[in-house]
Amino acid sequence: MIKLSEISAKPPEGLDKKDTKKLTKELVEELEDLQRVMYAEGKHSLLVVFQGMDASGKDGATRKVFGAINPSGCRVHSFKKPTDEEFAHDFLWRVHKVAPAKGMIQIFNRSHYEDVLIQRVHKWIDMDKVHNRYEHINNFEKLLRDTGTQILKFYLHISFEEQLIQLKERMTEPDKHWKHNDNDWKEREHWDDYMLAYEDCFKHCSPDIPWTVVPSDDNWYKEYVVAKKVVETLRGLDMKYPPLDTEMEV
Amino acid sequence: MIKLSEISAKPPEGLDKKDTKKLTKELVEELEDLQRVMYAEGKHSLLVVFQGMDASGKDGATRKVFGAINPSGCRVHSFKKPTDEEFAHDFLWRVHKVAPAKGMIQIFNRSHYEDVLIQRVHKWIDMDKVHNRYEHINNFEKLLRDTGTQILKFYLHISFEEQLIQLKERMTEPDKHWKHNDNDWKEREHWDDYMLAYEDCFKHCSPDIPWTVVPSDDNWYKEYVVAKKVVETLRGLDMKYPPLDTEMEV
Repeated sequence: MIKLSEISAKPPEGLDKKDTKKLTKELVEELEDLQRVMYAEGKHSLLVVFQGMDASGKDGATRKVFGAINPSGCRVHSFKKPTDEEFAHDFLWRVHKVAPAKGMIQIFNRSHYEDVLIQRVHKWIDMDKVHNRYEHINNFEKLLRDTGTQILKFYLHISFEEQLIQLKERMTEPDKHWKHNDNDWKEREHWDDYMLAYEDCFKHCSPDIPWTVVPSDDNWYKEYVVAKKVVETLRGLDMKYPPLDTEMEV
Repeated sequence: MIKLSEISAKPPEGLDKKDTKKLTKELVEELEDLQRVMYAEGKHSLLVVFQGMDASGKDGATRKVFGAINPSGCRVHSFKKPTDEEFAHDFLWRVHKVAPAKGMIQIFNRSHYEDVLIQRVHKWIDMDKVHNRYEHINNFEKLLRDTGTQILKFYLHISFEEQLIQLKERMTEPDKHWKHNDNDWKEREHWDDYMLAYEDCFKHCSPDIPWTVVPSDDNWYKEYVVAKKVVETLRGLDMKYPPLDTEMEV
């Protein structure tokens, strides 16, 4: 079982930052090519789930790893507080609606996991309901997988200390003010409860669609780990541009 | 196990048509009241699934049983051939989107079951896939049920002979021409395969959310059975108008 307190949020010791950034750059270029084939072939889709504490860099990972892709083939959905209409449905209703079509990469900035994280930490739902939701999450992810969607789940793992630095920067640097939210400081007080809730997700949710815990105190390493996992997954699909479909003489 | 060939599509012998129609009328009136409470309370929702061979009267049952309800609280969705966008997603994507919100009655004229009926009969999918879809259908229906949706599934059971009469009427009666479709006559040739596919659905799909086989050769009896089941289900929810929510003095 994953214990987050035992996992370092720093890059492995001795890893060269410059070399790693170069590798990431190559991976991002390869990703752009892979996505073009994916789109052309229209057979597979990819769902990338980013979860992590506030200021863990979900936005940044999205921008740095997927920023070079043709946006026709890549969509981002940020999950906020549910609307009235969303609240009037089951918790997966709004999630299923934005599941990727064949040929597409869909990125979730937060996701259906919020329904077993924030809701659990604040005791808006009891543990029976949490476990019931685990079951439905697993069924839902299996449905997507059985119908051609690869699912990659990234937990962006930052340390309690690094979060403090990041949250403070949002208050001191003018171009980060827009990211500041008083509430993030309140959520920070629930740190240990969140770690526990995440560890339970890792354990109970789709063991065959595992989480990648990404050490995220340093952006360059975080971006490398995410890019590598995404590229390796797409490479493994053995995708091909479709042959010419015509009745004309060529 | 249900064998459709052993179930009569006619009303029980001796049942009085006039008396039954009177009962149906009372039930439909009660349904109107029940739905108002349901809408006001906003706690439960109802999903009514109509399946049946062509000309079995899915439209008619919808009109006669639900026609008196305030349309604010009742929606009908007819499932046709999937669009390109729908085909690019898992088979439940378009279904989940139109699942009922709390307080609402949602009627499916055809449904996710088409994906294990017509697709199976025409061998567009193999039996492994059929069984995989049963599993996902069961998970999906469990999700809806666990989150406050009552599900009623009606198979409108008409006889092979009655279908012939109905399909012919669509060709001879001008106000029914719009319902005629050459293709219905081709589907009729697969009657026995459809019966088998339905029987398998009854057996494998959500035994705890059972199907009601509705003898449907005679509309008056069909409407009675559907109205009775719907009303009894809603009565069982013990719904109440919410108390006054105010800080004003009354």
